[in-house]
Amino acid sequence: MEKIVAGIITIGDELLIGQVVDTNSAWMAQELNKNGIWVGHRIAVGDVRVDIWQALDEEFKRASIILITGGLGPTADDITKPLLCDYFGGKMVVSQEALENVKKIFEKLQRPMIPRNLQQAEVPDVCTVIPNKRGTAPGMWFEKEGRIFVSMPGVPHEMKGMMTDSVIPALRQHFKLPFIAHRTLLTAGIGESFLADHIKTFEEALPSSIKLAYLPNYGMVRLRLTIQGEDAAATEGLIQAQFDTLKGLVGEWMVTDEDISMQEALGRMLTTRGKTIGTAESCTGGYIAHLITSIAGSSNYFKGSVVSYANEIKENVLHVSSSTLSTNGAVSEPTVEEMVRGALDLLNTDFAIATSGIMGPGGGSLEKPVGTVWVAVGNRQKTLTQKFSFRFDRQRNIELAATNAMNLMRKFLLLTD
Amino acid sequence: MEKIVAGIITIGDELLIGQVVDTNSAWMAQELNKNGIWVGHRIAVGDVRVDIWQALDEEFKRASIILITGGLGPTADDITKPLLCDYFGGKMVVSQEALENVKKIFEKLQRPMIPRNLQQAEVPDVCTVIPNKRGTAPGMWFEKEGRIFVSMPGVPHEMKGMMTDSVIPALRQHFKLPFIAHRTLLTAGIGESFLADHIKTFEEALPSSIKLAYLPNYGMVRLRLTIQGEDAAATEGLIQAQFDTLKGLVGEWMVTDEDISMQEALGRMLTTRGKTIGTAESCTGGYIAHLITSIAGSSNYFKGSVVSYANEIKENVLHVSSSTLSTNGAVSEPTVEEMVRGALDLLNTDFAIATSGIMGPGGGSLEKPVGTVWVAVGNRQKTLTQKFSFRFDRQRNIELAATNAMNLMRKFLLLTD
Repeated sequence: MEKIVAGIITIGDELLIGQVVDTNSAWMAQELNKNGIWVGHRIAVGDVRVDIWQALDEEFKRASIILITGGLGPTADDITKPLLCDYFGGKMVVSQEALENVKKIFEKLQRPMIPRNLQQAEVPDVCTVIPNKRGTAPGMWFEKEGRIFVSMPGVPHEMKGMMTDSVIPALRQHFKLPFIAHRTLLTAGIGESFLADHIKTFEEALPSSIKLAYLPNYGMVRLRLTIQGEDAAATEGLIQAQFDTLKGLVGEWMVTDEDISMQEALGRMLTTRGKTIGTAESCTGGYIAHLITSIAGSSNYFKGSVVSYANEIKENVLHVSSSTLSTNGAVSEPTVEEMVRGALDLLNTDFAIATSGIMGPGGGSLEKPVGTVWVAVGNRQKTLTQKFSFRFDRQRNIELAATNAMNLMRKFLLLTD
Repeated sequence: MEKIVAGIITIGDELLIGQVVDTNSAWMAQELNKNGIWVGHRIAVGDVRVDIWQALDEEFKRASIILITGGLGPTADDITKPLLCDYFGGKMVVSQEALENVKKIFEKLQRPMIPRNLQQAEVPDVCTVIPNKRGTAPGMWFEKEGRIFVSMPGVPHEMKGMMTDSVIPALRQHFKLPFIAHRTLLTAGIGESFLADHIKTFEEALPSSIKLAYLPNYGMVRLRLTIQGEDAAATEGLIQAQFDTLKGLVGEWMVTDEDISMQEALGRMLTTRGKTIGTAESCTGGYIAHLITSIAGSSNYFKGSVVSYANEIKENVLHVSSSTLSTNGAVSEPTVEEMVRGALDLLNTDFAIATSGIMGPGGGSLEKPVGTVWVAVGNRQKTLTQKFSFRFDRQRNIELAATNAMNLMRKFLLLTD
């Protein structure tokens, strides 16, 4: 079966000056992959005509599908649409469909339209318009010598709506797509090299149709098996057998055998057990609560949090005793243990997570350097504590503290089963 | 003056399958830009020899500096180092400097070394080793026909350490760099097209050496002026004059005239006034607290939060009256007003922000559809409330609610001055 290769071109000076992190490409790559399309290259270019043209030429040579985002906004630094019109040899015309959409959106927003907004309904006459239900800039579908070029706005939720509703279904119809399957598991508490060494024999014995990838992220390593084949059932059977072996090897380090996050895995464990949770956060500043509540349906097991950044909140709201704070300091085992108890009482949950640490860049001492974090997790009967020493920047220390605290909670849940 | 152009190549299947968002490129682009180096292209390729080779060839043709990240880890899916060795016509040798570094790190971690770790000290004999203070994989500096190629690990904090300590200083020394200046301001509460229309005359009259860019993000629009010149003083004077005019035009929509975030702008306002703040969060689930505490030094003005996800927490901890909740519901103006009062009392702060809403995908009704958010901000004398109707996915609704809540707080601070 022929391998269908896609290229992704993202357009915008903001990508090259570094003021915007490109999250679109990762999302698009995921969607393409799920549908059996491999992404060969991703290119980011500025709002520069010659560079965009060159990127189109390069991808034309090596990809069958070229997805383009950005450069379609209503403001003057956007040059993509006229360029695409020239590239595919068309002329600009008003799309009635796109015009109705622009008018409808402005009616809904009850805002007056300006000429700049109306211009968004102009498209090259050589494209098929892709409806944009979430914004005013229409998408455009071009075909050239067997290649498909799709241009979409750079605003993530507009692009995502278009991809899901129109682009993916149209691509599935246009190409005869191979079958691709992935199996992913998440590990925590073991470094990449040690994990690789631990599963070396397994990796070496993998059939050539299966590929293993290591994806380290914030103290966790995701392992992904990928297979490509023509027969869905046989392919699924083959990868599942290897995945089961891998799970057995990874054992206690495995957080979940699904492609989900730590917070989602924790949420599922709580849901299964019919239990509730709350957090008492100092150094993580509400980040654990944010991660937990970023999952839809988390209100079924998450009741709330106290972010006790100041010591007086630890004392007055969570009832950590003043002698504990003065004797041991805020970053200490007794403090996080008392925070867990305070959270259980105040929030009336079955379980609680507590964190206290020094995230940097300031606030460290010889005894308690930046990166020192105490975590406690527990229920009314028992608490489990762990001390961590991270050695990174503030943002990463916060990420690592949150991830490791949730992992400790997960282990506690397993122990109390 | 000659324009120095850089290309960025990121390597790794994880970038093309979309499991990792590439944050390295944006950061590298920012650093290069600050130093007068323009990024022309960013390319992401998989762990595929022919693709990496082709990317090197393409960038060789159009850039003077090529920065490469990824593909240097200790595991088997990494093929970058031997490829670079072939590309630059060298042979692999053990670098004593890199070997000492690997040993030192493992001693510090008190972990045993395995052969895989020692292999990391091998480098092509045609490169200059760039020390990695934060990890085991060394960086590599190659020169070929006047171009500089730098290969760094993909782990963000390792790459950042190398860039700051070694790569940027070496590039500054190697090239005669032009002077580039930026001025950035952040607006909120006005859409991109309306802003563009409002400052149309200004934009058209800008001297050709100055470029204006619109960078929309989560209900805010950042405006950036960029100038490039040879004389630092004259260039700075010219851009500052235009920036002052722009600030006057943008007026009340301006959040800050510095290239900082909403939460940093809010933090500076509180610091100047010597005031403290806390939050009572329902639908934002601790995200506002997280954003505020992501800023170093926030403990000077942020005391804490109550995340009252469950109604019983609103009632028992924040003392929202049960009749308010039963009569108006949790997502209502009276509820968020009482949440502000509850937070002020419990957290003992000068100001408080409260949010309650329906983030989706579930939980909406005809009367209160998904995206309905009530925000209240205030002090002991007064509260200010606003209702929002967002129409996006859960993640974006949370982002928008947090940003708009902080913006309302900012306005309240200005009103009470």
